[in-house]
Amino acid sequence: MSAVTVTRARGVLRALLDRPELRNAITPVLLRNLHAALDAAEADPHCRVLVLSARGEDFCAGTDLSHGVPAEVPEPDADGLPYWKLLDRLTRTPVVTVALVDGRATAGGVGLAAACDLVIAGPRARFRLTEALVGLVPAMALPFVARRTGEQRAFTATLLAEDLDPARSVAAGLADTAADDAEQALRHVLVQLSRVDRATTGALKEYRARLFPRDERLGRDAGRAFLDRLTDPTVHRLIGERAA
Amino acid sequence: MSAVTVTRARGVLRALLDRPELRNAITPVLLRNLHAALDAAEADPHCRVLVLSARGEDFCAGTDLSHGVPAEVPEPDADGLPYWKLLDRLTRTPVVTVALVDGRATAGGVGLAAACDLVIAGPRARFRLTEALVGLVPAMALPFVARRTGEQRAFTATLLAEDLDPARSVAAGLADTAADDAEQALRHVLVQLSRVDRATTGALKEYRARLFPRDERLGRDAGRAFLDRLTDPTVHRLIGERAA
Amino acid sequence: MSAVTVTRARGVLRALLDRPELRNAITPVLLRNLHAALDAAEADPHCRVLVLSARGEDFCAGTDLSHGVPAEVPEPDADGLPYWKLLDRLTRTPVVTVALVDGRATAGGVGLAAACDLVIAGPRARFRLTEALVGLVPAMALPFVARRTGEQRAFTATLLAEDLDPARSVAAGLADTAADDAEQALRHVLVQLSRVDRATTGALKEYRARLFPRDERLGRDAGRAFLDRLTDPTVHRLIGERAA
Repeated sequence: MSAVTVTRARGVLRALLDRPELRNAITPVLLRNLHAALDAAEADPHCRVLVLSARGEDFCAGTDLSHGVPAEVPEPDADGLPYWKLLDRLTRTPVVTVALVDGRATAGGVGLAAACDLVIAGPRARFRLTEALVGLVPAMALPFVARRTGEQRAFTATLLAEDLDPARSVAAGLADTAADDAEQALRHVLVQLSRVDRATTGALKEYRARLFPRDERLGRDAGRAFLDRLTDPTVHRLIGERAA
Repeated sequence: MSAVTVTRARGVLRALLDRPELRNAITPVLLRNLHAALDAAEADPHCRVLVLSARGEDFCAGTDLSHGVPAEVPEPDADGLPYWKLLDRLTRTPVVTVALVDGRATAGGVGLAAACDLVIAGPRARFRLTEALVGLVPAMALPFVARRTGEQRAFTATLLAEDLDPARSVAAGLADTAADDAEQALRHVLVQLSRVDRATTGALKEYRARLFPRDERLGRDAGRAFLDRLTDPTVHRLIGERAA
Repeated sequence: MSAVTVTRARGVLRALLDRPELRNAITPVLLRNLHAALDAAEADPHCRVLVLSARGEDFCAGTDLSHGVPAEVPEPDADGLPYWKLLDRLTRTPVVTVALVDGRATAGGVGLAAACDLVIAGPRARFRLTEALVGLVPAMALPFVARRTGEQRAFTATLLAEDLDPARSVAAGLADTAADDAEQALRHVLVQLSRVDRATTGALKEYRARLFPRDERLGRDAGRAFLDRLTDPTVHRLIGERAA
């Protein structure tokens, strides 16, 4: 069973989030599939770009809470939870990561897009951090959102659960570009990226990590901050009401 | 004697800066009144939002230098001066803090607004860091301005003593939104905020402080940097000329 | 032999990059000349502003690679390479530094402008980080670009080698203002700056450095990251092909 469909062409690996009936929610399967797509992209020395896109109305709906809070929640290890590790890898891999968002990116789905090196917003793109509405804090997504938007904009988008259309997403920095034809915009970006080899993008991304170092304990702390709220009885009730 | 008028309604505490004849300047009384308003908001578990607004043409004129430099200037303790402590509390309290600015925010008055979680600019709003014109450095306001505007914009607004109208304030990040009818915009924000409980906003603000940690000595150093200039003979003369 | 022409008038020292036939490329001579201009500005207590501008179509073309990679590349000392030291001085000197860009700022030329306190873009201004196209990383320019643009915009401008016109430069934060008549815009800025004395701008810039401290090893590490790529055989070949 797979939540992601992978295709390859000329230095580009595409990972299509392919469970529209689940709103492409973040599940253990989806996370494994995306980690595997990254593994495949990194293992192929000719692969320069990994493109994440999605089928259906949702780019990604965030953590699947449609059945309420999961009975078992994992303890983050020193490197954080699997979702955090995926976002961290998307920012660090020498492969250029591109999110083509032409549907709703919600909650953790916003973080998934924001962690990519480039975000292209199609006409149906919406970005919305909805966590606070059910008592959660988007602790793992926020660092990746904030380095795009700055501290204040990441905070207000969360506090007000703002529903950002493509133009506002670009203004806020969540998307790098908006286009009526997202696939065409992607082709244009791929041409631009074809001028830079993988060793160079790897060196650039490594230097970015040097210039903007992240606190080593942030992954673990972000996981705990997320789980702290998730296991709160009030949050349980709010999520349960939504799931019902 | 009071510089602030406090009212309450449905989870919202409003603190009206109410000394228009003093341009709502920052005085020891005003600082005590605002600290007391925060105490009251925090003590009431049903209070979710604290709104700062002002009567008259000035939201807040900053430190009162109308009689020249104060004869006695305090030494900041490890947590900074009372003005710094107020701004710090506004950012940390689990109550959401909103500045409704529909007049001139000048010098330290800019910092007072910027420290709030949300800033709504009405049509008469102006934001202007005037400190450099009298030889001062807005050392305590700048960290709160900069997390909204970024480093460069906070610096140029100070260096050029730019007079920002509502549209430019939003573009710079000093205000989150501009509206022809500021009270109506506030009502809209209060509806949005009513969806999120105090425990959640508290957790969100706590995580923000974790994600963007502030150097513990900054309060003390900012107070000293401000006082260093305030006690400079040239600055004394410049302020004296203005006060005369 | 000089690459820079210096003139003085009423508290302002102007340094004109004056080798249009070399596209005002960064050479050891140009760096020495600009360091000397800074020395002169700092030595004159009446000098409040240093203006960098350029003759010809290029503001500054970055490191001169027209003859391929230099045979001898220096080892950065603890304070970095001469280019880094110049940028660092431009940000720290109590003299206000202004870049008047009315031509192409390319690669390291972008960093030279970005390090200035204020950047005025004339109608012919273009900003383009082209390093990645020849396999390089703009390691020394990026910190100065990023404090203007934020992390993400500095990264994408590099990755895509974007060619930014005046309007996009202002939107990205690389320029503070764009004007049809750059010299007139400069005169306006000089009037604004005449209200603030050198002791105050010095204190403001010192406090900015306190508020946004830079890792002490960054100069050395940035120099090494730049040289690491410059001495890479693939990069040698790419630069050689361009030079041929």
